[in-house]
Amino acid sequence: MLLDSIQKPNDIKNIDPKDYDELAAEIRQFLIEKISVNGGHLGSNLGAVELTMALHLSLDLPKDKIIWDVGHQSYTHKLLTGRREGFENLRKFGGMSGFPKRKESDCDCFDTGHSSTSISAGLGLVKAREIQGTDETIVSVIGDGSLTGGMAYEALNNASRMDTNFIIILNDNNMSISENVGGVSKYLNNIRTRENYQNLKDSIYYPLLEKKYGQPIIDFVRKTKNSIKQLVVPGMFFEDMGIKYLGPVDGHDIKGLITVMKEAKRCETSVLVHVITEKGRGYEPAIRHPARFHGAEPFDIETGLPKKKKEKANYTDIFSTVMVKLGARNEKVVAITAAMPDGTGLKRFHNVYPDRFFDVGIAEQHAVTFAAGLAAGGLIPIVAVYSSFLQRAYDQILHDVCIQNLPVVFAIDRAGLVGSDGETHQGIFDLSYLSSIPNMHIIAPKNKWELSDMMKFAVSSNVPIAVRYPRGEAYDGLKEMRAPLQMGKSEVIFRSDSAKIALFALGSMVKTAIEVKEILNKKNIEVTVINARFAKPVDTDMIDELARDYECIVTMEENVANGGLGDKVLEHLNETNADVKVLQIAIPDEYVEHGNVSLLHKEVGIDADSIVEKIEKI
Amino acid sequence: MLLDSIQKPNDIKNIDPKDYDELAAEIRQFLIEKISVNGGHLGSNLGAVELTMALHLSLDLPKDKIIWDVGHQSYTHKLLTGRREGFENLRKFGGMSGFPKRKESDCDCFDTGHSSTSISAGLGLVKAREIQGTDETIVSVIGDGSLTGGMAYEALNNASRMDTNFIIILNDNNMSISENVGGVSKYLNNIRTRENYQNLKDSIYYPLLEKKYGQPIIDFVRKTKNSIKQLVVPGMFFEDMGIKYLGPVDGHDIKGLITVMKEAKRCETSVLVHVITEKGRGYEPAIRHPARFHGAEPFDIETGLPKKKKEKANYTDIFSTVMVKLGARNEKVVAITAAMPDGTGLKRFHNVYPDRFFDVGIAEQHAVTFAAGLAAGGLIPIVAVYSSFLQRAYDQILHDVCIQNLPVVFAIDRAGLVGSDGETHQGIFDLSYLSSIPNMHIIAPKNKWELSDMMKFAVSSNVPIAVRYPRGEAYDGLKEMRAPLQMGKSEVIFRSDSAKIALFALGSMVKTAIEVKEILNKKNIEVTVINARFAKPVDTDMIDELARDYECIVTMEENVANGGLGDKVLEHLNETNADVKVLQIAIPDEYVEHGNVSLLHKEVGIDADSIVEKIEKI
Repeated sequence: MLLDSIQKPNDIKNIDPKDYDELAAEIRQFLIEKISVNGGHLGSNLGAVELTMALHLSLDLPKDKIIWDVGHQSYTHKLLTGRREGFENLRKFGGMSGFPKRKESDCDCFDTGHSSTSISAGLGLVKAREIQGTDETIVSVIGDGSLTGGMAYEALNNASRMDTNFIIILNDNNMSISENVGGVSKYLNNIRTRENYQNLKDSIYYPLLEKKYGQPIIDFVRKTKNSIKQLVVPGMFFEDMGIKYLGPVDGHDIKGLITVMKEAKRCETSVLVHVITEKGRGYEPAIRHPARFHGAEPFDIETGLPKKKKEKANYTDIFSTVMVKLGARNEKVVAITAAMPDGTGLKRFHNVYPDRFFDVGIAEQHAVTFAAGLAAGGLIPIVAVYSSFLQRAYDQILHDVCIQNLPVVFAIDRAGLVGSDGETHQGIFDLSYLSSIPNMHIIAPKNKWELSDMMKFAVSSNVPIAVRYPRGEAYDGLKEMRAPLQMGKSEVIFRSDSAKIALFALGSMVKTAIEVKEILNKKNIEVTVINARFAKPVDTDMIDELARDYECIVTMEENVANGGLGDKVLEHLNETNADVKVLQIAIPDEYVEHGNVSLLHKEVGIDADSIVEKIEKI
Repeated sequence: MLLDSIQKPNDIKNIDPKDYDELAAEIRQFLIEKISVNGGHLGSNLGAVELTMALHLSLDLPKDKIIWDVGHQSYTHKLLTGRREGFENLRKFGGMSGFPKRKESDCDCFDTGHSSTSISAGLGLVKAREIQGTDETIVSVIGDGSLTGGMAYEALNNASRMDTNFIIILNDNNMSISENVGGVSKYLNNIRTRENYQNLKDSIYYPLLEKKYGQPIIDFVRKTKNSIKQLVVPGMFFEDMGIKYLGPVDGHDIKGLITVMKEAKRCETSVLVHVITEKGRGYEPAIRHPARFHGAEPFDIETGLPKKKKEKANYTDIFSTVMVKLGARNEKVVAITAAMPDGTGLKRFHNVYPDRFFDVGIAEQHAVTFAAGLAAGGLIPIVAVYSSFLQRAYDQILHDVCIQNLPVVFAIDRAGLVGSDGETHQGIFDLSYLSSIPNMHIIAPKNKWELSDMMKFAVSSNVPIAVRYPRGEAYDGLKEMRAPLQMGKSEVIFRSDSAKIALFALGSMVKTAIEVKEILNKKNIEVTVINARFAKPVDTDMIDELARDYECIVTMEENVANGGLGDKVLEHLNETNADVKVLQIAIPDEYVEHGNVSLLHKEVGIDADSIVEKIEKI
């Protein structure tokens, strides 16, 4: 196998050019096999095999730098930089990350995970090179989907002023995770489908103009903002901003890519190389089902079907169902996603109510202020978004939604530890950043039925409100507990009159609290279990009661401690001079790596056993 | 006076068109007089007089909606909607806001304050109109400076898909607060200065092409992505995105503006009207000094000079000075601002080290990730930014700086209550949102010397670190207290062995703590005063000591309580089972309106008298 000869960076340069396609095929085979076992991002990686090879053939790593936007397409890069073994433990705890990590290899020059950061980071590296007088080549690789994010544009706007080389590769597969949206996508599509632009220039305009009017008219035209260039050259969008445009080029033609990279390296300015690739290239199921194979669960290579059949509904399924009901019940209900119609479960709502559904692209900031506008216009918008991506819109929630106290509902999926995507994707900060915002309300369901109830409650609440729920299987215990929701009120799950300890648990931690109760009961320790329901406003009446009747309150949340539920409880107890011990169960002040979620819970000390241990210490 | 006849919305429609210019002159005179007394945004308002008049003449308020981006240019709008009296108490506590406020008038349809939100909000109102079948006109007015913010582009990308009317007015004065930067600015400038585009089209290309090749070639050209249009029509940038472009038009020609508005209203799509205005129009000092008259202090109309001479340096001045020193001492130090070279005090650094200074436009997200890139490249970037604007970059701090633990220094100006700009600009959340982020460090100086010391400390700390300091006069007391900074350590300002109360104050609150001490001493109550220095990591050794030696710890911070310094102290005391009462002095969980800063301190209960009162209650 050719792949065997690639053990470290730049080994690919020893491969005979005639074998490039064979190596690409081997890499694809390798990726499909490994990802089919461990799961991971497949489609984007299959699309970027030749592009990555061409970059490694054109550059000298680790001296030269590649910044991978989002980073889920960096598997071939990992393979070509001596990390083949890492794929055995891809995305497992302690194993190789699915994203570029500086701590993993000196060939990973900048960590990524969220979208649209690569041009900003690349520009930083370019300016550092200029100031320090070094001569490495800096390349940012960004997908067309990531180009819908505003910060990519902020960066392009700044890249325009450069008089030094900076290469931006636009990896254009006309696809974000699901389907691309908006004007830029349309624009790129126009470029892709235009065939005769070169012919047009050579055969018609120049001769035409020169014959008729002579050189002066050509000069005039050139002076007039290079109009003739705009007539015939694609990419004016970029050239207008002062960024040189090369392409479009075939992203699966390695020699063509090497040629264009040579030209790009010669530019003494920012240069955008427009590369057309096919997402899922080489594996039919991934081409046919781009959303499923974006971030894939382990699958059967033959059929492309997931290996593990889903047995229980997950929270996203529950949300998906209740959204359709809410849409039927109230025609003011509208739904918004930032490029995640599948991931958030809004696809069904979209199918039933296409006019009340909005996919805004990877643009969380716009999503939130757009929702504020919809609410100001009299509607009830529901923004469905992952916890870690909503971090992008902190200011918009604070400034555009909550100052005006507009009834926007945030359906926050992936709140809590998300598992194999790791530290960039853990949804463990939302309670903190949302709690700091006046007028905000935050609730979290204990089980699948409560998620439905909470969505209904949120829609009728007429205030800014967030419903947060974790990734994965929905808890289907405590079915009988379905007391109506009341603003700011918790729910008693189990009250023991002889207990000295009360568990005050939020959302996913109610299930854990039940586990803790069962373990403690076996040890003849009684506990009361309260479903907090509200992280903000916290149920102070209940806390007063617990402070009076118990010796210890255990606050339980799947969020960092800083600024979370426990802090609110402490604040209230201090204010009221209550004499009760509090045990704060929360995630410590650290980033949490990738790995299996149950393992991570143990690792950060919020699983039932760890909690029991902490309770017994008191 | 013509202005006397304008008492309520639409009264302007009774003005004789021949008197429009006179009315504009009266409005300018009025604005200059009022702002010279109360302070306020002058330049942007003087530039938008005719534009606002034309909008009010073309629309029917409050049925039709105008969203003012940033909103500081809405004074003429306020004047034309019956709020003339409000200018007597402009930006004073309880008086009229300097920004649009829904609670102030039904002609204000959406609150603004931060940049680049208007197109998103406008799109929300447009979709609400469509869904509900109403027929109001929606107009977003955005400056060219605001167009450097990424979320404006996210919104434009979505506005491109419209088949209903949505009017975007680009109020282009080639100026953000200081000077515009980047590719888009260059692009707009090209449009502005091109004169012959219309002639070019009519006299050369169409006849030329038709004579030579006949109609077929014209059709061919049109098919080829409307290339002929791109050749001769300005605004392809927008048209390429699928947004109709009208202009450029003279923003001081009311009749011309009314004509273009008629055309804009006829479009069944998004339409961008490019209006060229002059910032500060009609008042020479404002034209000559755009930054000073952006947000002006009360000034003498004759000379344009501030009425109140600055007696003491403010924190921005101190920062400005120390930056130049740091630049000299360490050539790795670079500085970044998001369109605020004057406001942040970086102008001097820029003058001395132009190659190590970056103004990225109104683009906080890019600013922070760009800084992360610079740090990854080996430099020490200092991002100078206002507290409320840094909210825009929460995810970038968390995701791009702190996961990689990169040594980026945040110099956070306007941290605390800022006064007359009001709720959108209060810097009272940074301790909360920054504290939630792992690896982040937060310090705040007690006085002007400590700001210098802290900047030096931050630059040599090699970790992500924020230095927060308030707007306005720098405290010059406690000059003798200048113990060297140590990571995570507080400073004893005054220790009383007989005291039962210890004040644990952060940053600006150290000065208040001294005041509290003096008042209490007069009442024969002794207190110990500690300068917390670090909000994160908080000095737990000191807290242990205070818990042991005192009956009450008073935590003092100019930030909301949620997730702030006090919460960290409570967390630690709870963990250590300490038996001590804590009094949390912080801003309550509410937005704080505009008004004089000392008044606001009293209003939210963090001035010395209020604190003494609370201490006495215990």
